[in-house]
Order: sequence, then structure tokens, then C-alpha cells
Amino acid sequence: MLGICIENVRKTCPLVHNITNYVTVNDVANVILAIGASPIMSDEPLDVEEITSICSALNINIGTLNQRTIESMMIAGKKSNELNHPVLLDPVGAGASNLRTQTAIQIMDNIKLDVIRGNISEIKTLVLGSGSTKGVDADVADAVTEENLDHMVEFAKTFSKKTGSIIAITGAIDLVANSEQCYIIRNGRAEMGKITGTGCQLSGLIPAFVAANPNQKLEAVAAAVCTMGLAGEIGMSHLQEHEGNSTYRNRIIDAIYHMDGKTLDEGAKYEIR
Amino acid sequence: MLGICIENVRKTCPLVHNITNYVTVNDVANVILAIGASPIMSDEPLDVEEITSICSALNINIGTLNQRTIESMMIAGKKSNELNHPVLLDPVGAGASNLRTQTAIQIMDNIKLDVIRGNISEIKTLVLGSGSTKGVDADVADAVTEENLDHMVEFAKTFSKKTGSIIAITGAIDLVANSEQCYIIRNGRAEMGKITGTGCQLSGLIPAFVAANPNQKLEAVAAAVCTMGLAGEIGMSHLQEHEGNSTYRNRIIDAIYHMDGKTLDEGAKYEIR
Amino acid sequence: MLGICIENVRKTCPLVHNITNYVTVNDVANVILAIGASPIMSDEPLDVEEITSICSALNINIGTLNQRTIESMMIAGKKSNELNHPVLLDPVGAGASNLRTQTAIQIMDNIKLDVIRGNISEIKTLVLGSGSTKGVDADVADAVTEENLDHMVEFAKTFSKKTGSIIAITGAIDLVANSEQCYIIRNGRAEMGKITGTGCQLSGLIPAFVAANPNQKLEAVAAAVCTMGLAGEIGMSHLQEHEGNSTYRNRIIDAIYHMDGKTLDEGAKYEIR
Repeated sequence: MLGICIENVRKTCPLVHNITNYVTVNDVANVILAIGASPIMSDEPLDVEEITSICSALNINIGTLNQRTIESMMIAGKKSNELNHPVLLDPVGAGASNLRTQTAIQIMDNIKLDVIRGNISEIKTLVLGSGSTKGVDADVADAVTEENLDHMVEFAKTFSKKTGSIIAITGAIDLVANSEQCYIIRNGRAEMGKITGTGCQLSGLIPAFVAANPNQKLEAVAAAVCTMGLAGEIGMSHLQEHEGNSTYRNRIIDAIYHMDGKTLDEGAKYEIR
Repeated sequence: MLGICIENVRKTCPLVHNITNYVTVNDVANVILAIGASPIMSDEPLDVEEITSICSALNINIGTLNQRTIESMMIAGKKSNELNHPVLLDPVGAGASNLRTQTAIQIMDNIKLDVIRGNISEIKTLVLGSGSTKGVDADVADAVTEENLDHMVEFAKTFSKKTGSIIAITGAIDLVANSEQCYIIRNGRAEMGKITGTGCQLSGLIPAFVAANPNQKLEAVAAAVCTMGLAGEIGMSHLQEHEGNSTYRNRIIDAIYHMDGKTLDEGAKYEIR
Repeated sequence: MLGICIENVRKTCPLVHNITNYVTVNDVANVILAIGASPIMSDEPLDVEEITSICSALNINIGTLNQRTIESMMIAGKKSNELNHPVLLDPVGAGASNLRTQTAIQIMDNIKLDVIRGNISEIKTLVLGSGSTKGVDADVADAVTEENLDHMVEFAKTFSKKTGSIIAITGAIDLVANSEQCYIIRNGRAEMGKITGTGCQLSGLIPAFVAANPNQKLEAVAAAVCTMGLAGEIGMSHLQEHEGNSTYRNRIIDAIYHMDGKTLDEGAKYEIR
């Protein structure tokens, strides 16, 4: 019952520290507020240790990394580990440049990550050391499909076993795996890919879900992924013919604002393998 | 008559220099345009002195401060003081970290501030040297209520007397005080707290109002606060049932776009003590 | 037939590297997605060479420049030149400060620019070494009008001849010139000036259009300018009475999302001199 996970977020209002890119940061803040949690952003090395200490969870997103913010990611990540806060890594553009790939690997090597969330090309890069990321979007050749699904489920579980992190691979079909179990999620709409930052938004939601559901982390991540996808479906149902990706962005966040456990339980489409 | 203040903004179109956080900066720019003023953003030490010189007012917001932008805040603030431009400080997250608290105090100590605008936890931090800020949101234990109102009015006037700045404390009840008088404002909606940056937006509006009304600064700040709150009420009236915080954000800025002196005078809810 | 240019963007999906300001970056990303291209943002010196290498075009916007990002602009620009990628410069605020003016000139002197797009005050600054920019907006005294149109067309052609760049001067009347020909474009709405970043958005669209139409660059830039203006007209037609600049911003991006060659060909209003 994933719906309980969302109710727990609304009950506990976790404060989430985000070190994230400046492209989609406003949407990340609004989506965290929409789910009933609170966002705070800080990426200055002298500030992040204290900020992360007053929070319940940390979201690290390398979408517009620079040398200063990389330092902040490391400091905040280590402090969060000390405090046993859940930490998520969103390796935006891993595979697109050496700096992004190496930063993601450096974070994985030095910080215990509760969740790694990316598109399939980014995750393949982390597993294989190279990938065919097309900028910040996944390469179609990499996609999770009905045909390669069993193989990809194994791939996700194996990577989870190796890293000790829950692995969330999002795309047309989403996978959320630990070493034992994998949620296969079929919520969402293809048009979400035409909005910048729906992945970043999800990476902001997940730490809130995990902080609010410490004893069922895998379910919490799956609930966040289903919430985002279902919001994409609900948001689309309110879209008028002349409206496009910009209004759709708002409709999705609006749908999360109104999401409750019952709606999620009725709308979530998943199986577990 | 607060309405005149808004008409003066639309007549004089002041150019406002903003050194503000990257989370809500786009909304700050759009709300300044909505009220009929013009925004410019610059946070590079080598650039800010000239940029602030061509402006009429300065908005300093420490929401995502870093060492470079702190330096810029100091340079721009001093230059604005030289030129007698109104300067506002928004001490976002003061109390949440030492860097934020100390930066706010450093700015207060070195720059003559026309206005300090924050939530009650941030303002208490500046007065007492410590506070119970919950990240960037006020602690409920600190809230201005009908019960502690007389006390809080005195608190605001005393802080104004000490600093020489107009003090704007915003929350469910807003206070705008100089050492003699305090506007108690009851516009606004609780749901505004579910949008990131309504406080930052107000901090962008206030310098425009003060620059356009140099001989009635207290009224100008009160007018800006009433405008934001009233826009929150008007925006809510246009919200459909399925719409949430993301669309609400747009509706508020839209309402400011259409705000005029008459609407403000009819909708402003305040008393002066 | 400008419509073909838009169809070529949708067919080829060019990846555009943007080094742009943090005020309007989210809208730039969404408008690039709306036209069917893909955005990527990176402004770290250690990252930009590789990122620009995987892209098809580069958009340099100095709206919130700092010393780090200026270095990145130079690195990315030179690499793009090596790879023969189209490069655009948006000299935001040139004339408003020495740093902005000198940075724009440094970029012009060291990087082969396919397109320079700015408002008339910014472009005059680049031509004359000084201008009367009002912050990031054009001075009305500088405006392109029906009265000075022949003169301004010559001005644009002469500047194009001197620089080897296509010159796009946008305002109430838009000019898009190479040394031989000038498109005079009368699409758009005055209200677009009340939204932050419509110019930045256009500067994100143009590199996508040029990358997708390498053999008809002048037409490609004109098509992008007409697309933005026409979207402003279509977006306005969907605006309700109580809606203002914030919703209008979304409506414009939505209109670009639905724009096709036929709509553009029917709605584009231009002449060539």
C-alpha cells in the first residue's frame, strides 16, 4: 500500500536540503512544497554542513555542477551520512562529460547513498563507466522495454547489490530496485519528457518520501515514482487543446499538491518482480 | 491612502537591482515587471557597483548566498548608500546557519538599510542573535498572533528604533513598523506559504515601492505588503478546484499585473497602532 | 518559406548548449523543448568543452555573467568554432556596465559568431562602444520605428558586414540582417516586454533553428524571430481577462509547443529589404 507513504510525508513535513541545478530548482522547491514537505537550498561549502544538519534528507543533483558546488556536495553528503539522513544522487548528464561521470563516481565512492535515480543512460554510465547519454536525456537505444524487461530488472538489482543503494531508473517504464525486489512502474506520460526537470522534481520528492518512511525505503521510493507518474496522467487530463509543455509543468505540480494516499493507491500501476 | 503608492510605481517605473537567490529569481523578476517596475540581476563583484548605480533601489536576499555573492552584496550596498538609493535586506534563513546569521548581521552593521523584511523567526534571530528558524520557514512557536500582537508591535518598533530601518515581519498577520508607527496587515492567504518565494517576491516589490515614494517610505512598504497579500486573495478567487500551488503562483503575479490604486485601497485590510 | 525551418528543427532535434543567466534559464530550457530541440546547460570551465562537443549549437547569454562563467563562454565558444557549430551571442545589458560591454566585445573579438541578438540599445553599444541601455531593456530613444526604418536596416547590414554575423535586433519591429538582406518582422505584442526573458528564450531558439537549417541561416534566424512573435500573438489570444504576465509566459511557450510550419507560414509578417 504505497498510499501510506504519501500520508506519512504530509504528516511529518520533512525538511529536504537540495544541492541542485539552477535550471529546474524552482520547480523542485514547489514540488517539495506540493507534497507537504519543505525545501531548502544551499550550495556554499561554508553553509552546507549546518543546513544539512537541520534537515531530514539530502538531494544531490549534478545538473549544473561547478567546482564550488562539487565541494559542497561532498561536505553535505558526509555530514548527512554521519547523521543517518537519507541521501539521493541524481547523476544528471553522467556519460555526457568526464567531469559529470567522475563526480558521480566520486560521490558514490565516498558517500553512502540511499537512492540513485537517473535515466537509463546515466545509470549505465555508472555501472559500465561509459554510456551513450544524449546530453541530459537518455539514448533511445538504451531504453527499458517490455522485450528487455527481465534483463533490466536483473541489471537494476545487481547494481543495487553492488552499491547498497536503491536504484531508480526512470523512463517510459520505471524500475525501482533493491538487491531483492524490483518495482516495475507503468505510470506517467511520454509528454513529461518535453518538460525540463520532471526527473529533477522526482529527485526532490524521493528524499522526502524516504525520510518520512524510514522503515520501508523501497516502498517509499516506489511511491514517489508512482506519485510523479500519476501526477503526469492527472495533469494531462486537465490540459486544454492549446496548452503545451509550460502549462503541463504547472498541472503536474498542481496534481501533486492534491495527491493523497487514496488517489495514489487507486492510480498506481506497478508489479513487483 | 496606500493606492497612491502603487500608482507612483507605475508612473516612475523604477529600475531595481536584485542580488537574490537562484531558486525564486524568475518570479522576483516577473513580479517586479508586473507592478510596472524593471528588474536587473547582477551578483558579480566586478559588475555590481555600476549596475546598482544605474538603478533606483537595491534588493539584497541571502537565500542562496555564497562567498562571491556576499562580496557583491557588500559592494552594492555601500554604493547604494553613497547614492542614497533605498536598500532592502531579506535575511533568508538567518538562524538556520551561522553563515546566514553572520552575513545578515554584517550587512546590517555596514550598510544603511531602509527596510528589513523577513519572517518572524529570521527577525528574532537578528534581534536576539539566535532564533528557531525551521529552514527558510518561520517556526510556529514564534508566530505573530492576536494574543501577542501588542507585544509584537512593540518588538517591531523597538527593532526599528535600534536599526533605523523599517521592519516588515510577514506571516499570517503582517507588521510594518518604524519606531513610531506600526501597520498591522491582515491581507493574504495561508496557502501562499505553499508557494516557494512569495516572501522573496515581496522583497523585490518593496524597493520599487520605496523608490517611487521617497517621502512616504512607511506607507510605501505597507502598500507593497498589502499588494502582495491582496494579490494572494484575488489569485485564489481565480483558482479552479484541481489547481494547486504551481498555478496559484502564476495567479498571484497575474493579480499584481492588474493591481491598481483603487483595487488596493478597496482591498487593503490594515490598522495602525 | 520560413515554415520549412521549423519543420527541420522538429525533424533533427538539435542539442543546444546554453551558457545563460539563472533568471530565465528554466524558460529557455522549456522553450527549446517546446520547439522540438533539446537543451543542456553547463557553465563550469572544466565541463563546457566536452558538453559543447556533444551538442549542435551554442547559446551564450551574459545576463548574469561572473568571472567563472565568462571563462566558460570563451572555452565553449572556441571549441564550437573548431567544430563549426553555430554560436549565438546575447549581449544582455551591454552598455549597462563596463564588464558587460567588455565581455561582449571580448567574445566578438575572439569567437566567430553566427548570430548576435539583442535589443537596439545593446547592439548600438556594440557598434559604437557606448549606448543608453536602461538596465536590460532598450532605451525608447533608440527604438526602431517606421520613421527611421531605412536607416536602421542599413545600420544592421553594416554591422553584419563588419562582424560577419547575422544581426538580430528585436523590439516592436524586429530586424534580422546579413550584409545583403534584412528581414523586417512585425510579429509580436508589446506585452511580451512585461515578461522576463522573452529575449533570452528567443536566443535559445535561434541556435536550434540555425543548427537545423545550416544552408539557410538567415531564413532560420528570421523563422525563429517570427515564431517567437507569432507565439506571442497566439498566446495572447488564449489569455483571459484576469490573467497577466505570468500566465502569458506559459501561453507563449505553449504556443511554440504547438507551432508548425503551416501556422508559421500563415502568421509570419515580414518583408525583405
